[in-house]
Amino acid sequence: MTHDDFKVKVLGRAEVKSKLTPSSLSDGTAFGFIENDDRVLINTTLSNYKQDVETSKTPISFEIAGPHEYLYFNPSNTKVAIVTCGGLCPGVNNVIQSVVNQLYYRYKVKQIVGIRYGYEGFIAKYNHQEVELTPQSVDKIHFFGGTVLGTSRGDQDIVQIVDRLSKLNINILFCIGGDGTLRGAHAIHQEIHRRNLNISVAGIPKTIDNDINFIDKSFGFETAFTIANDIIRYAHNEAIGAYNGIAIVKLMGRNSGFIAAHAALSVHEVNLVLIPEMAFDMDGSNGFLNVLQRRLENRHHALIVVAEGAGQHFFDSATLEKDASGNIKNKDIGLFLKEKITEEFEAKGFPFVLKYIDPSYIIRSAPANANDSKFCGLLAQNAVHAAMAGKTDFVVGHWNSNFTLLPIPISVSKRKEIDVEGELWWNVIETTGQPASMKKQ
Amino acid sequence: MTHDDFKVKVLGRAEVKSKLTPSSLSDGTAFGFIENDDRVLINTTLSNYKQDVETSKTPISFEIAGPHEYLYFNPSNTKVAIVTCGGLCPGVNNVIQSVVNQLYYRYKVKQIVGIRYGYEGFIAKYNHQEVELTPQSVDKIHFFGGTVLGTSRGDQDIVQIVDRLSKLNINILFCIGGDGTLRGAHAIHQEIHRRNLNISVAGIPKTIDNDINFIDKSFGFETAFTIANDIIRYAHNEAIGAYNGIAIVKLMGRNSGFIAAHAALSVHEVNLVLIPEMAFDMDGSNGFLNVLQRRLENRHHALIVVAEGAGQHFFDSATLEKDASGNIKNKDIGLFLKEKITEEFEAKGFPFVLKYIDPSYIIRSAPANANDSKFCGLLAQNAVHAAMAGKTDFVVGHWNSNFTLLPIPISVSKRKEIDVEGELWWNVIETTGQPASMKKQ
Amino acid sequence: MTHDDFKVKVLGRAEVKSKLTPSSLSDGTAFGFIENDDRVLINTTLSNYKQDVETSKTPISFEIAGPHEYLYFNPSNTKVAIVTCGGLCPGVNNVIQSVVNQLYYRYKVKQIVGIRYGYEGFIAKYNHQEVELTPQSVDKIHFFGGTVLGTSRGDQDIVQIVDRLSKLNINILFCIGGDGTLRGAHAIHQEIHRRNLNISVAGIPKTIDNDINFIDKSFGFETAFTIANDIIRYAHNEAIGAYNGIAIVKLMGRNSGFIAAHAALSVHEVNLVLIPEMAFDMDGSNGFLNVLQRRLENRHHALIVVAEGAGQHFFDSATLEKDASGNIKNKDIGLFLKEKITEEFEAKGFPFVLKYIDPSYIIRSAPANANDSKFCGLLAQNAVHAAMAGKTDFVVGHWNSNFTLLPIPISVSKRKEIDVEGELWWNVIETTGQPASMKKQ
Amino acid sequence: MTHDDFKVKVLGRAEVKSKLTPSSLSDGTAFGFIENDDRVLINTTLSNYKQDVETSKTPISFEIAGPHEYLYFNPSNTKVAIVTCGGLCPGVNNVIQSVVNQLYYRYKVKQIVGIRYGYEGFIAKYNHQEVELTPQSVDKIHFFGGTVLGTSRGDQDIVQIVDRLSKLNINILFCIGGDGTLRGAHAIHQEIHRRNLNISVAGIPKTIDNDINFIDKSFGFETAFTIANDIIRYAHNEAIGAYNGIAIVKLMGRNSGFIAAHAALSVHEVNLVLIPEMAFDMDGSNGFLNVLQRRLENRHHALIVVAEGAGQHFFDSATLEKDASGNIKNKDIGLFLKEKITEEFEAKGFPFVLKYIDPSYIIRSAPANANDSKFCGLLAQNAVHAAMAGKTDFVVGHWNSNFTLLPIPISVSKRKEIDVEGELWWNVIETTGQPASMKKQ
Repeated sequence: MTHDDFKVKVLGRAEVKSKLTPSSLSDGTAFGFIENDDRVLINTTLSNYKQDVETSKTPISFEIAGPHEYLYFNPSNTKVAIVTCGGLCPGVNNVIQSVVNQLYYRYKVKQIVGIRYGYEGFIAKYNHQEVELTPQSVDKIHFFGGTVLGTSRGDQDIVQIVDRLSKLNINILFCIGGDGTLRGAHAIHQEIHRRNLNISVAGIPKTIDNDINFIDKSFGFETAFTIANDIIRYAHNEAIGAYNGIAIVKLMGRNSGFIAAHAALSVHEVNLVLIPEMAFDMDGSNGFLNVLQRRLENRHHALIVVAEGAGQHFFDSATLEKDASGNIKNKDIGLFLKEKITEEFEAKGFPFVLKYIDPSYIIRSAPANANDSKFCGLLAQNAVHAAMAGKTDFVVGHWNSNFTLLPIPISVSKRKEIDVEGELWWNVIETTGQPASMKKQ
Repeated sequence: MTHDDFKVKVLGRAEVKSKLTPSSLSDGTAFGFIENDDRVLINTTLSNYKQDVETSKTPISFEIAGPHEYLYFNPSNTKVAIVTCGGLCPGVNNVIQSVVNQLYYRYKVKQIVGIRYGYEGFIAKYNHQEVELTPQSVDKIHFFGGTVLGTSRGDQDIVQIVDRLSKLNINILFCIGGDGTLRGAHAIHQEIHRRNLNISVAGIPKTIDNDINFIDKSFGFETAFTIANDIIRYAHNEAIGAYNGIAIVKLMGRNSGFIAAHAALSVHEVNLVLIPEMAFDMDGSNGFLNVLQRRLENRHHALIVVAEGAGQHFFDSATLEKDASGNIKNKDIGLFLKEKITEEFEAKGFPFVLKYIDPSYIIRSAPANANDSKFCGLLAQNAVHAAMAGKTDFVVGHWNSNFTLLPIPISVSKRKEIDVEGELWWNVIETTGQPASMKKQ
Repeated sequence: MTHDDFKVKVLGRAEVKSKLTPSSLSDGTAFGFIENDDRVLINTTLSNYKQDVETSKTPISFEIAGPHEYLYFNPSNTKVAIVTCGGLCPGVNNVIQSVVNQLYYRYKVKQIVGIRYGYEGFIAKYNHQEVELTPQSVDKIHFFGGTVLGTSRGDQDIVQIVDRLSKLNINILFCIGGDGTLRGAHAIHQEIHRRNLNISVAGIPKTIDNDINFIDKSFGFETAFTIANDIIRYAHNEAIGAYNGIAIVKLMGRNSGFIAAHAALSVHEVNLVLIPEMAFDMDGSNGFLNVLQRRLENRHHALIVVAEGAGQHFFDSATLEKDASGNIKNKDIGLFLKEKITEEFEAKGFPFVLKYIDPSYIIRSAPANANDSKFCGLLAQNAVHAAMAGKTDFVVGHWNSNFTLLPIPISVSKRKEIDVEGELWWNVIETTGQPASMKKQ
Repeated sequence: MTHDDFKVKVLGRAEVKSKLTPSSLSDGTAFGFIENDDRVLINTTLSNYKQDVETSKTPISFEIAGPHEYLYFNPSNTKVAIVTCGGLCPGVNNVIQSVVNQLYYRYKVKQIVGIRYGYEGFIAKYNHQEVELTPQSVDKIHFFGGTVLGTSRGDQDIVQIVDRLSKLNINILFCIGGDGTLRGAHAIHQEIHRRNLNISVAGIPKTIDNDINFIDKSFGFETAFTIANDIIRYAHNEAIGAYNGIAIVKLMGRNSGFIAAHAALSVHEVNLVLIPEMAFDMDGSNGFLNVLQRRLENRHHALIVVAEGAGQHFFDSATLEKDASGNIKNKDIGLFLKEKITEEFEAKGFPFVLKYIDPSYIIRSAPANANDSKFCGLLAQNAVHAAMAGKTDFVVGHWNSNFTLLPIPISVSKRKEIDVEGELWWNVIETTGQPASMKKQ
C-alpha cells in the first residue's frame, strides 16, 4: 500500500457551502482547527524512520481527525441519518447519542433520523419506520447497552438503500457496524457517486473483537474484556471449588484472540489461553490434553480461556456454516474441548470436574465502561467533524494517540490479528505461565 | 407436625463443661444471654393466634438462636471441623471465615480444621488432607466466591466419616450444604449417637434456590437474584436490539422459582416468568407460544425468565437423570423453549431473533453481596453459639426477624415452594403483566 | 398503645364505588384478595403469646396489606398525585415508577401527576408546574438514584396544599418522605377531613437511616449499607497503607446507628463502630482514645465507622442548629474525632496518619440495589392497593415477612433505635471485637 | 532536549553475567528479544517527519522496553527490593504482584523483599522490618486497592538508604512512586554510582493525576476517572433533585486537570469543568458565577467538576503550604466555590441548593479496573526485563502503543498538562457545552 491509498475522499470541494464561524459554534472562541494536510505516521520506530529517509519514500500515514473551519454542508438544511448494523457491542448507544448531540448543539443540525434494525430499515418490505432523534430522545441511552435503533445482520439491496436516502433527502449517513457493514457503506458510497449525489457516507467501525486493521482499538473492546474479567474470576472459583476442577470460559474472537489475551492479562488467575492465531494439538506429549493434565496433577485446578475462533483446524472446513452477515459460524471450540477432555480423562480414569461457561451475550449487551464511553463520544465527535466537512467513504479510527480518518476500503482490506511471535502474546505467555507451544512433538 | 418436632437436641446436658464467663469473652461485659426456652412463633397472623387460643394448642414455634451462658464444650480443648458440600453458592467463604473468627476470637477455640472437597475429605481413598484454619488463613476469603475448602457432590460412607471424626478428635462438625448434605449430617449424627460419642453436628443450610423449608431466606439467594438482575438487564438489550427480539434467561431453581420470581420483581423489564410451580401449556390460544407471539406483535420484543425446573412436565419423567447428589437433572427447559419457538415461528413465517442465556455458573460462583455477607456472618456466629452449647443435629435458620435453630429432620422434611395463588406470585403477575394462566383452553 | 391505635382509617366505606372485577384487572383470573380483617402480630415470641393468653388481651397487630376486591375509587375518573420530600434516598424513583405502573396497568387509572420539589410544588409562589406521569415518562427512572420529581425540605402551609389538591381534583395523594413529611401528610389528611373531602392520603415512608418505628426495614437502607461497604473496604486500604494509619468513615444515622452497624456486619475489617445509641468517653483508660491507641500499638492500623449522630453529648446542645426539615443538624462527630485524635496523639508524640471520609451524598444519591428495587416495587403496589380501597392517613410498612398498613400517627410516634443490650449490637461487638464499653473508669 | 538525553543508563555492560537462555525461561521457546537499539519516535506527525528530514536531525525517541537475551544479573544470586511511596493509587498492589511473579517465575529470582512504609522503611530509627515477598504472599493482593507494603511521604536520608541497600545485599531496587519518589530514586542512583555499587534502580512512575511527562498514561488514572464517573452520576442526581440544584465534585489534579477532563468526557451530564490549566474569573458577565446563574435559570440544575488545583490564582500564593512530599497543598477550591456561590446567590436572593462532594480517598484507594490491571502487569514485566538487563536510573513508561524506558531525570523534568488550546480541551468544551472562556470582560 502506498501513501495515496490512505487519502480520504471529499465531496466536491469547490462547492463549499458554509464556514464554521464563531456564530455557528456554541461559543465564539477560536480553537485551532485541524490543518487539512497534517497526518500521523503509521510506523513510528526509529528504524522505520531511518529506512524511509534512506529510500526517500514518503512514509505511509493517516489523516488526523478534528474540526474544520470550512464546512461542506450548511447546518440549517442538513439532514442526517444514523444506522446501526451487526451484533451488539458496548457503546453503540453512546455513539448514537454523541453523534446527535454534536450535530445538534455544536453544528445546529436539527434534522436527524434513526434507521431501525440496520440496513433492513431502508427497505420498504420490512416496513420499519425511521425515528426522529433529538438530544431529548437520546438523553439517557448511554447508560444502557444494546442499540436503541435496533440492528440486523446481512446485506440489503444497495439500490433500494440509496433510493431511500434520496427520498428522505439525507445529506450524511452514519453507518455504525463491522466490516460487513462497512463494505455495505462503501457500496452505498459507490452508488451515490454513480448517481452524482452529494451524500457523505461516514463509517464508525464497530467490532467487539478489536480486529479492524489500522485501528489500534475499537469501541466496546475494553468493556468486553472488563466484563470477561469478572466472569473469569468467578470461573476461577468453579475451578478451585472442585478436586481437579477445570473451568473453561469461551470469549468472543472469531478470527483473533484480542479479548481472550487482554482478559488473561487483566486477571492473573488464567492458566491457559487458546486463540485463533495459534496452532496447537490436542494430543502428543506437548499437546493441550497433556499440558492440562500436568497442570492438574501439579495444582489440582485449571482455568482456561478460549477464543471462539480458536482450534477451528480441528473441524472440517467444508462443513463450516455462515451467519446472515456472511461471517463463518465457528464450530464450538468450547464444547469440543469439553468433549475431548471428558473422553480422555474418563478413559484414563483421571478424576476431574469440568464447568463450561459461554458468557458472550452477557458481554456484548453490556453498557460501555467509563473509558469506552469517553472513547465513543470522541469517535462520534470526530466522525461528525469529518462528515460536516464533506469527507466521505471514510471511517473514523484511532492510531496511537490520535483520532484518524481512513478510506473505508483500507479499513476492511484485512483483519488485525495477534502476532504470536510478538510482544502481546509473549506477555500472555509470561503472565499465564503456559507453554509457548502446544504442538505435538 | 407438633411442637415437639421442633425441639433441638442437646448433647447430655448433665455434662456441662464450662461457662461463658466474662473472662472467656474478649471483653468482660455481661450481655443478655439467650434464655433457653424462648421461642418464636411460626404462624404470626392474628387469625392463627385466635385459633390456637380457641383450641388451647401450644402453637408451633422455633428455638431462638443466640449465645448461651453455659457451654457444653471447654474451648481450650475443643477441636472443630468444617466441611462444605454440594454446588457453589455465594457466601460459603463468608460462613467459613465467620465460623473460624467466632470460634477463635470469641470462644478462644484454636483447633479448627477444614475438610477438603466435601464429604470426600473424610474418606481415606481420596487422600485429601485436612487444612488448618486460622483467622490469618481465612483473612480475605470473604471477598471471593466459591469455597476455599473445595466441595464435591454425593454421599459417602457414614461409618468411615465418623471413624475419621473420631480419629481427628473432632468435637464439633459444621456441615455447610444443601438438603442432601444435611441428610448426610443427620446420618452422621445418628452414627455418633449410636457410638455414644460427644460430637455435635451443626448444619448451616446452603441452597441458592432458597427452597429450604421453615427458613425464610437462605444465604446466597439474594446475591443470586442480584447478579441475575444485571444479566437480565443486558438480556433486555438483546431483545430490543432486534425486530421481534426474544431473550430467554434461564436461572437456577430446580423445584422452585424463587430466584426467577425475585429477579423479575427487581428488574421491571421482564415480560414472562416461568417457574416449576406453575402449570402451563405450549399450545392453545392461551398457551405460551401464543402469549409470546401476541407480545411480539404488540411490542416487537420479549424478555423471558425461566427457572431451570419449569416445564418438566414436557419431558418424559422416566428418562430424567440424577446427578451425583441425587438431584434430578432437569431437562433443559431453556433449550426446549428455544426449539419450540423456533419451530413454531419458522413454520408460521413469523420473523424473530432469539438469544438464549444460561448464566448459572457465573451467578453461583460470585462473592456474596453486602446483605448476604452480613447474613452469613450472623448465621455462622449463631451456629457457633449453639454448637458450643452442646446442641446437635440442628440447622441454624432464620424466621421473620430472628435467627433460629431447627432439628435437621424438620428442615429437610420438604422443600419450600412458591404458592402460585399467594402474594409473591401475584406480585410477579402484577409486575410483569403476564397472564395469570397460560393453560390451553 | 392498644389494638385500636393500629387500626387504619378508611374513607366513608358506604360510598364504595367500584369493584376490582376481572375486567378491571389486566387478566381475569381470581386471586385471593386480602381479607380485610386479618392482621399480623407485632410480638411473635412464644413467651409473649403465653402472656397474652394469660391476660386474655388481644395482642397488638398490624393490618396486612394487599389487593382488595372492593375499591373505593372508580379507576376511570380517579386522579392521583405523587410528591417526594426530604433528603435523597435510593429507591425513590423505583417507588414513583411502580406507583405509576400499578395504577396505570393494573387499575387503569390514567390521570397521574407528579408534584415538583416536595411540598413546595403545591404552593403558588414557587411556581413549580406539575408534570404528567405515564408509564412512558417513568420508563427508565428506576435505573437512577435521586428523584425525578425533585424534592425540598421543610413544612408548607397545609391550607394552601389542600386548596391545590382540590383545585387539581386529586383523589389520592402519595407522599414519599421521612417523618417530617409524614407529619405533614397527617396534617393534610386532617384538613381534608375537616373539609369533608374524599381524598385519600397515603404515606410511603422514606428513611435511609431505617429508623421508622414499627417498620422492620425501610427502602434504600440496604442500598445505603451496601455502598458503604465498598467505601469502607477502600478506607481499610487507607488505614493499612500507612504506619498507624487511621481511617474514619462517617455514615448516615442522625438518631440511630443502623447503617453503621449493618455496614460493619457486612464488611469484616471494621475495628470500631460508634453510634448515637451508645455512650462513650474520649478519655480515661477505657475511653475511645486509649482504645484506639492500644489497637494501633497492636496492629498499626485502625478502621473506624461512626454514625453522624454519635457522640452528640460532646457538643453543647444549646448550640445545635436545625435544618429546613426541622431535623437537628448534628455537629460533625467525624471532624471532632479527627481533631481530638490529632491533638492527643501529637501531644504524646505518637505517630499516626489519619484519613477522614464522609461519603453521605454518594450513598444517598445512588440507585437502589436489586433487593431494594424489588422492595420498592412491592411497597408501591401495596400502597396503591390500599389507597384504591379507600384507606387513608396510612403508611405502607413491612413487618417480618408481611407488607403492612399503619396509621401515620403510629409510624411517627417515635423513632426506632438500636438496643445496645440486644442481639444486633452484640453481633457488632462480636464481629468487630471492639470493647463492649468505652466508658471512662 | 536532544536524542542523547533520552538514553537509558546501563550498569557496566562488560560485566554481563548471564544469558536468558531457554533454560532460564519457563519454557524453551525462543521469542524475539528486544533489539537494544530500536526506539520509538516521540513526535509522529508527518509534518514533524518532514522537518526532521529537512534539518537532517535524528528525531528524539524513546527506548522500547522488552526482554533482553543477555542479562546483567545472575538470577540465582540476585536480590531485589521493592518500595512504594507517596499517596495511594489504584494498581500499586498489581505492580508489586507482577514484579514478584515475573522475577520468581520467569527469571527464577527467589530473593525478594518488600520495604515497609516507603523510604522510611530504609531508615533504622523507624524500625520497620522488611517483609519477604513470594508468589504466595502476594497471591490475591491485586484484588485490593492500597499497597500491602504501606507507604509514606517525604524525603529520607539518601546515605542511610544506600547503606541499608548495601547491608541487605540488594541488586535491584524497584521504586514505585510519583515525581518526588523518582527524584529520590535518582539521588539513590547517584549515591550508588558514587560508591561504585552494582545496584540497579528502576522507577515505576505512579501518579493518579496522569501528569508525568513523556508518558502518555500512568497506571491508576483510568480507574480514577472510572470511579469518578459513578460518583458524578450520583452527584447529578443531587443536582436534579433540588430546584436550582448545584452539585460540585472535586477531583484529584494538583497541577493538571486530566482526571476532571476525562471524567467529564466519560459521563455526559457534566455542565462545567474547571482545571488548573485554565484561567477563569469569578465575576464579570462571562465569569463563573454568571455562567452558573444563566445555566440555572435555563435548566434549574448544574453539575460542576473541579480539579483540586484549579483556581489557585484566587489564593495568596505566599500562604500556600506544602505536604510532607513537598507538594503544594492546594487551598480547597471546592469550598471556595461553595462559599462564593452561596455569598453571591444569597445576596441576590437567587434560590439554590448546593451539595459539595470530595471523593478523593474513595477513588485513590480503590482496586485497579481491568484495563489498569493489565497495564500494571505489563509495566511491571517490562521494568523487570530492563532491570535484569542491567539498566538503571530509568523509569518504565508508555508512549503510543509501546512500553518505553526513559532516564529518570527526563521523566521528572517537568509535569504534563492539558493544552487548553488543544484537542482534549476542545473535546471537553464540545461535550459539556461550557463557554470556551470564563474570563471577565
